Amino acid sequence: METEHTISRNFMEPSYAYLIEKKRDGEEFTDEEIRFITNSILDKTIPDHQLAALAMAIYFQGMTPQEIAVLTEEMMLTGEVFELPRITRPKLDRYATGGVGDKSGLVLIPLAAACGIAVPSMIGEEEGFVISDLDKLRSIPGFQSEIPHDQFMKQLQQVGCAIIEQRPEITPINNILYKMRKETGTVPSIPLLTSGLLSKKFSEGADGLVADVKWGNGAYVRDVESAKQLGRMVTRVAKSMNRKCVALVTDMNQPLGSCVGTGLEMQEVLRLLRGESDPDLDELILRLGMEMVRLAGVAGSTLSAKQMVRKHLTDGIALEKLRQMVEAQGGDVSYIDDPDKFPKAKYVKKLPASKRGYVHTINAGMLAHGVKILAQRRDGTIDHAVGVSEIKKVGYQVKQGEALMMIHYNDEINLESALEFLRSSYRLAPKRPAQNDLIVERVA
Amino acid sequence: METEHTISRNFMEPSYAYLIEKKRDGEEFTDEEIRFITNSILDKTIPDHQLAALAMAIYFQGMTPQEIAVLTEEMMLTGEVFELPRITRPKLDRYATGGVGDKSGLVLIPLAAACGIAVPSMIGEEEGFVISDLDKLRSIPGFQSEIPHDQFMKQLQQVGCAIIEQRPEITPINNILYKMRKETGTVPSIPLLTSGLLSKKFSEGADGLVADVKWGNGAYVRDVESAKQLGRMVTRVAKSMNRKCVALVTDMNQPLGSCVGTGLEMQEVLRLLRGESDPDLDELILRLGMEMVRLAGVAGSTLSAKQMVRKHLTDGIALEKLRQMVEAQGGDVSYIDDPDKFPKAKYVKKLPASKRGYVHTINAGMLAHGVKILAQRRDGTIDHAVGVSEIKKVGYQVKQGEALMMIHYNDEINLESALEFLRSSYRLAPKRPAQNDLIVERVA
Repeated sequence: METEHTISRNFMEPSYAYLIEKKRDGEEFTDEEIRFITNSILDKTIPDHQLAALAMAIYFQGMTPQEIAVLTEEMMLTGEVFELPRITRPKLDRYATGGVGDKSGLVLIPLAAACGIAVPSMIGEEEGFVISDLDKLRSIPGFQSEIPHDQFMKQLQQVGCAIIEQRPEITPINNILYKMRKETGTVPSIPLLTSGLLSKKFSEGADGLVADVKWGNGAYVRDVESAKQLGRMVTRVAKSMNRKCVALVTDMNQPLGSCVGTGLEMQEVLRLLRGESDPDLDELILRLGMEMVRLAGVAGSTLSAKQMVRKHLTDGIALEKLRQMVEAQGGDVSYIDDPDKFPKAKYVKKLPASKRGYVHTINAGMLAHGVKILAQRRDGTIDHAVGVSEIKKVGYQVKQGEALMMIHYNDEINLESALEFLRSSYRLAPKRPAQNDLIVERVA
Repeated sequence: METEHTISRNFMEPSYAYLIEKKRDGEEFTDEEIRFITNSILDKTIPDHQLAALAMAIYFQGMTPQEIAVLTEEMMLTGEVFELPRITRPKLDRYATGGVGDKSGLVLIPLAAACGIAVPSMIGEEEGFVISDLDKLRSIPGFQSEIPHDQFMKQLQQVGCAIIEQRPEITPINNILYKMRKETGTVPSIPLLTSGLLSKKFSEGADGLVADVKWGNGAYVRDVESAKQLGRMVTRVAKSMNRKCVALVTDMNQPLGSCVGTGLEMQEVLRLLRGESDPDLDELILRLGMEMVRLAGVAGSTLSAKQMVRKHLTDGIALEKLRQMVEAQGGDVSYIDDPDKFPKAKYVKKLPASKRGYVHTINAGMLAHGVKILAQRRDGTIDHAVGVSEIKKVGYQVKQGEALMMIHYNDEINLESALEFLRSSYRLAPKRPAQNDLIVERVA
């Protein structure tokens, strides 16, 4: 491996300025140039300002699938790559690009395990308004997001799934690059998003990936065209690296489900796994679950995949997998068995509609920002009891004064700041709005 | 001035990431945002990587004339701005964007002075292969490029022209920005080129500017479309700042005149001012000179401007102005009177044509790079005796073995490295090539 990733002697090291200009002018990097860049990021020889200019040039000029594949590979191979030779089941993960109220991952992962798939899910930090699935799991007392590697392996063998924090040894280059991108307006670069997410997921040991590429005001990618491009690029690059991959481009222009907030979302997950239905989440979970089952090859046909997913979602086996996972990671499973144990907020009040009309749009990012404020304790920890529930979705007809949502809060000052965001996230209109398709495109 | 350039209290300081994203998405900065950015550059609060990303976003998205005008003004006003109240003559300068063998400035400046214009020319460093006019003047022993301010004023009054090094107090923001741009592939940004050159020229005390915007393989701007855009932007922004400005877009795809090299070019200047003719340089000098005379208002009509420029170019008055300027700046004027005094290189050899044919293209930048190598002394100083002369221009028909140019050199090792560039700068072809127009566009 050392030899493979040392720059060959025949390769004249180009200057960083030359490489920036090359990309600025829309040219394609050679494999050696990509390796030179990744090595320079890793050993910190490329100055920050040149890396930033290069990232912005990549934002505007893009990269070819070949460039992205080499970049992804280098990002993986300069970090730790987990191999899971003792796991004989198909190893697959899912990935979503942001989301508000999106608890589909917490349902899908145990559901996939219930269908015979091993899901070695490592999660990086989420950005801005997005609540991480780990924070939702942490609303269960005792839940550990960092576990030793041998326990991770054992849990994958015995339970079939694990959701843990991404280790810093994984894709160190992506970590450096991502920190810089957040400060330089280059997070939405499709090639860098693609290589970032694929390198992380394939370093976990997964053989394949189902990507939920969300678009809209509650996602990292705001416009549908960029989301389609990202979905296509992710599948194309993954395949060129001989990995299985399917991407669904999905709508994220209002919260998914009826709750936003760590503990409230965890309770909604438990309701979903006990058979309670939600039209949007049901469709998303079934479609993504089916894709995972088909990609893993554990079902022979689309029909049998659909049946398998539908069955385990409601027969208690997925719930049991979640319970086993929480238990293996130190969580208090009495919360799973009796969701009434989740702490309640001191106060619950409605957010009244200012006038009658239809819910025309919900700015999901703004709503989620309001919820983040509700949950910010003075000591920096998260208040798991707060959030919003009974969210009225787009197309719902309200009377003046009717609740747009119920606000669960413990702190009056937080409520004051949060209210501004929660209120302004809703737009009411006299006419019934058109509904977005939940699933816009499937890329396989 | 202090009040005017302090950010108003009503202005919420935006984050750098927000500003980068705003420009990345093609939006226009407010005047206050531009001032916030320039202040952040000056007091070094904006981190390098964010400034670099911003510059690259500006490279791709451009800036409006209003944004560029505010940027230019801020660049000027945060540095020293010379006022020349005792100079009653019209104050004008010229500016060229790179150039190989271009000695027009050294003719034009004394010529404009001969026509009654005051030319307070301050020159910044040149980039890459371009030889600075100051280096050409320094081939005259004793010539001083740094002179005290009161002497500069006195010289402008008495002689009418001065060519000195740009003071560091002028446009400090542009200096910081330019250093960063060289390392990040953002030098060719039209808004940043425009604000850089206008802020420098208008800080000198000039009321107007004739810009020679060159395009081609020997210029900073490689393509003609970008040069036209730059010419248009420069005149538009200058006018919005109530300054006089004309831009000519001119061809720089082969050396101008017959020599390249500091001392050789200085001698060519003296020949031109003694009436010796060169077709390309003559046209360029007459056209630029006429524009200066018309812009300064020292001639009533185009015809009289033409006559005035033509007259003083050959009647010895422009030569006398050059002599006075060199004398005032400490140079040995016996070199002006007797150009034979310029030191000769030890060796002169021809660069033979490899085959018969027409000179099809000359890569002027490559040729100039070869000359720079010839002149590099081991101690870091410039050898003023070396260079190339008798350059065969595009369209010239050569026999095999005939001289494409004469190479003047003092050092065999330098010659070896230089030859590679000099040789590869020529392309011969069996057919006579089409000739580029010297002057492509006039923007007034």
